[in-house]
Amino acid sequence: MSSSRAYAVQSAEDPFGPFGIDRREPNANDVEIAIRYCGVCHSDLHTARSEWGGTRYPCVPGHEIVGEVTAVGAGVSKFKAGDLVGIGCMVDSCQRCTPCHEGLEQYCENGMTGTYNGPTQDTRDNTYGGYSDKIVVREEFVLHVRHAPEQLAAVAPLLCAGITTWSPLRHWQAGPGKKVGIVGIGGLGHMGIKLSHALGARTVAFTTSPDKVEAARALGADEVVVSRDKEQMKAHANSFDLIVNTVAAPHNLDAFLGLLKLDGTMVLVGAPSEPHPSPNVFSLVMKRRSMAGSLIGGIPETQEMLDFCAEHGIVSEIETIRIQEIEDAYERMLKGDVKYRFVIDSASLAEDA
Amino acid sequence: MSSSRAYAVQSAEDPFGPFGIDRREPNANDVEIAIRYCGVCHSDLHTARSEWGGTRYPCVPGHEIVGEVTAVGAGVSKFKAGDLVGIGCMVDSCQRCTPCHEGLEQYCENGMTGTYNGPTQDTRDNTYGGYSDKIVVREEFVLHVRHAPEQLAAVAPLLCAGITTWSPLRHWQAGPGKKVGIVGIGGLGHMGIKLSHALGARTVAFTTSPDKVEAARALGADEVVVSRDKEQMKAHANSFDLIVNTVAAPHNLDAFLGLLKLDGTMVLVGAPSEPHPSPNVFSLVMKRRSMAGSLIGGIPETQEMLDFCAEHGIVSEIETIRIQEIEDAYERMLKGDVKYRFVIDSASLAEDA
Repeated sequence: MSSSRAYAVQSAEDPFGPFGIDRREPNANDVEIAIRYCGVCHSDLHTARSEWGGTRYPCVPGHEIVGEVTAVGAGVSKFKAGDLVGIGCMVDSCQRCTPCHEGLEQYCENGMTGTYNGPTQDTRDNTYGGYSDKIVVREEFVLHVRHAPEQLAAVAPLLCAGITTWSPLRHWQAGPGKKVGIVGIGGLGHMGIKLSHALGARTVAFTTSPDKVEAARALGADEVVVSRDKEQMKAHANSFDLIVNTVAAPHNLDAFLGLLKLDGTMVLVGAPSEPHPSPNVFSLVMKRRSMAGSLIGGIPETQEMLDFCAEHGIVSEIETIRIQEIEDAYERMLKGDVKYRFVIDSASLAEDA
Repeated sequence: MSSSRAYAVQSAEDPFGPFGIDRREPNANDVEIAIRYCGVCHSDLHTARSEWGGTRYPCVPGHEIVGEVTAVGAGVSKFKAGDLVGIGCMVDSCQRCTPCHEGLEQYCENGMTGTYNGPTQDTRDNTYGGYSDKIVVREEFVLHVRHAPEQLAAVAPLLCAGITTWSPLRHWQAGPGKKVGIVGIGGLGHMGIKLSHALGARTVAFTTSPDKVEAARALGADEVVVSRDKEQMKAHANSFDLIVNTVAAPHNLDAFLGLLKLDGTMVLVGAPSEPHPSPNVFSLVMKRRSMAGSLIGGIPETQEMLDFCAEHGIVSEIETIRIQEIEDAYERMLKGDVKYRFVIDSASLAEDA
């Protein structure tokens, strides 16, 4: 075992504080990573506060991890010390079921192991995530980061916000000739805009805030619609091939379903704590529309996304924080006061020594 | 103009009564049909009573029409007097838009013309349906019936109940190697079971009534699940490629979404007057599941379905009634007291003469 500095909550009501965790010595197929940066995802907050239920405490969140390989097990062939790497939302899965064999480990039939909150495959134990300075992960769940080293902090959010929007964009074939909507311009949405645009789709961003219009254009939106403006919405009726809806707060889904053309799909990637108002069945029936869900992305497509981003110079827009500022960051995140992702500089963990 | 005997309601509160309507003389591309039978669809009741709103009165419902061609316009080449034919839910569409060109007239971008309740393409007038003894329809919306003449009454429900289940079964590729669920064993559901079975899919019927189990097996279900039995439902978790949900009454959609495998789809073909309880987003997200809607079917696929049914000896299970019994039939339909479709013998219209 080797000790690692971390920040944890001990219960749904407690604030974060320093916490020491033990990381296993690398097994033959393990990669040991010195964490440099970790993005702050809304799921971290949901889990720390057990808003979805089922949180194992102590809880060390963080699944947008980038760092440097410090050691590898004897059987590891794809990584070596000094490599820049990323870890996303998963650190293990059964590796035996059909989804695992198809590179869709997030849909593992036996349940994937989250980077935090477990459960581990063998003992169903807890796992501790990226609000720490070190992590040991089996090789299959480690991603190569091919961006320039100075971009590393801004790469971190690609590991969750990036792949969560990339996966549905690819699965539902966003690209040239397609009209794609991105609902919400937050951590996920701002990546959705960048990725959809880079994939060549005509990209329309939806926001409730007129003051986000210019920012959304700057991110790559061909057009920005203020979703509270009925006339603007009406002008886009029946025209979208795909809408990726990143908004987790309950809202009127029919307003967006009505913008889909025949056979169009709206994919929900945000999971609200309270249900959305029930969509009208006619919204689906009248143009054979679909409403789907999508969960992060598999390991091969995460690598594909990282490589695509490296090639196209795509990173997240971030604000770097110290781990000691995490509670403030959560409060600001709840108010939407972040453009567009907080990233923890893991060096700050040493300050509590 | 030629006069036609019909039954109409004059308002949402009125009962049906005899009503005389004028049918146009056949234009060059029209087919004039002596109606022999007309199925009674739940939409007839919704429309007669304006439960979906927007009903034009007087209202003559009926869109599961079979009959015999009595005359054709000079430009009609595909039909001749004496042919057995069917008319479904549509009698016209713009014929210019992409869906119309693709044989998906039900999704016409300019709005299809319903067999009843209009609106007509030109003057946006009302149309009168199959609760009558004669109808005149443009050739493009007339279907060949290739069943034996003595099967004619039982063919009528194929024109709506049949195509409404056939279209999603075909679009989402029900067939050998696929596991398909049919929720509800009524007018639509009983056709869904027959068609899914005939297409070669492993077909599982869902009913709330244990006393419908044997009947569903007789219709062709490989297995029947009583959906109120949690253990029976659990045994099918994560296993369906496709579920066609025919139940229009509001119900728990999550119970069925949870039965879909990775990338599975539940298609809603019933349109409730009140919304369903809102489905849980996690039900969609966790296995990239979709919830879709589907509206009847296009003309080419309706002909395909009719020919498939003729070839496979498939008809509906029906109870023939006289038009004078229509109010009783509606009351029995509301109680689910019909196996599985009422069909009006149009000869009864002459009784009021």
